[in-house]
Amino acid sequence: MNRHDIALIGFGGVNRALAEIIHHRGDELAEELGFVLRVVAITDLRLGSLMQADGVDLGAVFAMTGADTFAGWRGGAAVPQNDYVIRNTTADIVVEATFTNPLDGEPGISHVRAALESGKSVATTNKGPVALAGAELDRLAAAHGVRFEYEGSVVSGTPILRFVSETLKGLRVNAVQGILNGTSNYVLGQMESGMTLDAAVAEAQALGYAEADPTADIEGSDVRLKVVILANEVLGGSITAEDVSCRGISGVSSADIIAAAANGSRWKLVGSASRDADGRITASVQPVALPSTHPLAAVSGPTNAVSFDTDLLGTVTVAGPGAGRVETAYALLSDIIAIDARQRATAEANQ
Amino acid sequence: MNRHDIALIGFGGVNRALAEIIHHRGDELAEELGFVLRVVAITDLRLGSLMQADGVDLGAVFAMTGADTFAGWRGGAAVPQNDYVIRNTTADIVVEATFTNPLDGEPGISHVRAALESGKSVATTNKGPVALAGAELDRLAAAHGVRFEYEGSVVSGTPILRFVSETLKGLRVNAVQGILNGTSNYVLGQMESGMTLDAAVAEAQALGYAEADPTADIEGSDVRLKVVILANEVLGGSITAEDVSCRGISGVSSADIIAAAANGSRWKLVGSASRDADGRITASVQPVALPSTHPLAAVSGPTNAVSFDTDLLGTVTVAGPGAGRVETAYALLSDIIAIDARQRATAEANQ
Repeated sequence: MNRHDIALIGFGGVNRALAEIIHHRGDELAEELGFVLRVVAITDLRLGSLMQADGVDLGAVFAMTGADTFAGWRGGAAVPQNDYVIRNTTADIVVEATFTNPLDGEPGISHVRAALESGKSVATTNKGPVALAGAELDRLAAAHGVRFEYEGSVVSGTPILRFVSETLKGLRVNAVQGILNGTSNYVLGQMESGMTLDAAVAEAQALGYAEADPTADIEGSDVRLKVVILANEVLGGSITAEDVSCRGISGVSSADIIAAAANGSRWKLVGSASRDADGRITASVQPVALPSTHPLAAVSGPTNAVSFDTDLLGTVTVAGPGAGRVETAYALLSDIIAIDARQRATAEANQ
Repeated sequence: MNRHDIALIGFGGVNRALAEIIHHRGDELAEELGFVLRVVAITDLRLGSLMQADGVDLGAVFAMTGADTFAGWRGGAAVPQNDYVIRNTTADIVVEATFTNPLDGEPGISHVRAALESGKSVATTNKGPVALAGAELDRLAAAHGVRFEYEGSVVSGTPILRFVSETLKGLRVNAVQGILNGTSNYVLGQMESGMTLDAAVAEAQALGYAEADPTADIEGSDVRLKVVILANEVLGGSITAEDVSCRGISGVSSADIIAAAANGSRWKLVGSASRDADGRITASVQPVALPSTHPLAAVSGPTNAVSFDTDLLGTVTVAGPGAGRVETAYALLSDIIAIDARQRATAEANQ
C-alpha cells in the first residue's frame, strides 16, 4: 500500500489532534483511502525536534509530561530547528501548523517556502502564508512538482475551498460572501440578548473563543485575510489585503441590534468579494443587517458559513465549524488526501 | 480533445436546459473541463425521436414550434422509440430525464437498464430509479464497466451527494437530515404568515411550485424516496421506502405554527436517517418544530438543505436550490463531469 511520511511543524492543538487521528484511526483510514500515514518528524517550540525516518512512536509522544523535551531521544533535540528539520526530514508531506503572525505570515511563510524548495508538499492551516504570499508559494510548488494545500486557512475544517474546486465544477462563481469569524459572530449574538459589546467580548475571552487581544476578531482584520483567500481562490482574483475595505463590529451599538431585531434582521460581520463583467474584484469586510431570509442570517455562535453566487445554480451555501482543534486537523487530513490523489494522477499519467 | 456523445431521453424543461447549456456554453466548458459535449440523439413524447451520429443541430431543434416533430428529419421519426434509440444510439452517455412515475420508477428504470446493458453510462435526475432500483442499477453499471450517476435525484443541482463523496473524504457520516421538498417548505412558510394549509397549497399550485395533485409533496412520499437515496448513498445503507416511517404536514395546524413561532421555533418537514453503532439505519419523514438555532430552521421557501453529522467535523450543512430547470440541468452536467473523470482515471490505470 502507498504510504505518506509526514513532518509535523508545530505540535500545538491542531497538529496534535492530527497525530491522534493518525494514531487511533490510521488503519481504518488506510482501508478507506488506500494509503498509510506515518509521522517521521515533529518540531515544537516547547518539545524541541524529533526526526525518525522509520516512524515516530506517537504513543510515547502523547505520554510526555511537564517539562519533557525530545532531548535524549534518538534523532531528538531540545530546540525546534524548524528549518533544518523541514529541509532534511525524509517526509514527503510537511504539515505546517505553527503559531504564525497573521500580519507578516511568519514563521509560516518561511516554513512553507523551505518545504516546497526541498521538494515536499505542504498542508497548512495558517491563513497568513496563503493570504500574503499565496501566489509566490503556488508558483514555487508548481516549479518543484509538489502541492501546496490550505483548506484550513478559511472556515477551519469545513471544506469550503474544495467544495468549489471539486463539487462545483462547470459553474462560474461570480460572488462569495461569508461569516468567517466565530468570535465576532458570537459577540453579535450575545448583544442580541442585551449584552454590551465589552461584556460580550469579555465572555468570549472567558470561554476561550477570543484571544487576549480581540482586535483582529472584532475589527475585521482576521476576516480580511480570509476574504483575500476566497477572492483569489474562488473568483480567480489576485488581490491583496489592501484591496479589501475593512470595518469591524465595534461601531455596531446595542440600539442598532435591537432596531434590526424588531424588523426581523440580524447584524452580521460579512466578508464578501465579487467579480464584475470586466473581471475586476470588489471586496469588503463590514457589519451588515441581514434580513431573516438571507442564507447567512441564521448562522449563529461560532459557526461559519459561506454563500457562493453561481451562474447556473444560483446561491449555494455551506455552513460548518469555523474553529476547533479536531475540526481544523480534519482540514489537514483533507489536504493530505488531495495531495495523495494528485500524486497518483500524475504518476499514472507518466506511466 | 476528448468528446462525449450524448443521448437526451425526454426533452422537457431539464434536458432542454442541458441542451441550451451545451449549445451556448459548450466552447467555454470544453476549455475548462477538457472535453467537448455533442448531442447525437433526442427522444421526446411530443417531438418523437432523432438520431444523428454526426451531431444534432441544436439551433434547429430550439427553432421547432407548435406541432413540429422530428418526422422527416434525417434519422428522425414522429414517435419517441425510447428503447430503440437508447440501445442503438452512438452516444456514450444517456441522459434520462423523462416524466417518470415515482411509485414504480417507470419508464425511467427501463431506460436506465437499457442504457447500462448496452454499455452506455447514465445520468438521471429521476429519483424513482435510484430509490427503487439503485442497488440493481449500480451492479448493472459495474458489470458493464460504465457509470450510473444521479446527483439531481436529491436537492436538484445542489451537489449534496458529490459533496459527501468528494469533499468529505476521510470522515464518517453518522446521520443526515434535510429539508428535501420545496413545496411543503413553502406552504409551511405561508402558514407562518397566517394562511391556512389549503390556501397555501392553492397558492403554491398557482405559482407552479406544486403539482395539480400535491399529495406526494404534502404527505411526504417525495421526501421519503429522497431519504432512501441519502441513507443508502451517504450512510451506506440498503433500505427501501417501506423502512422509512412517513408523516406529512397535513396534520400541522395554524395553531401549532403560531405556538412554535412564539417560542422562536419553526415547523419543518424533515427527512432524516441515522446509523447506530451496529450499522442499523433508522429513517423517517415527519414535521418537526425546529429551534431557531438548528441549522435547518432558517431554510425558507423553495430552498432545500441537508445537514450531515460527522465524526471529526461535527455538523456541516449545504443549502441551495431544490428545483428549477437550469439548476436541475446542472446536476446532469455535474454527472457528466464525474463520468468523464472516472473514464479518464480508468483509461490511465489501464495504460
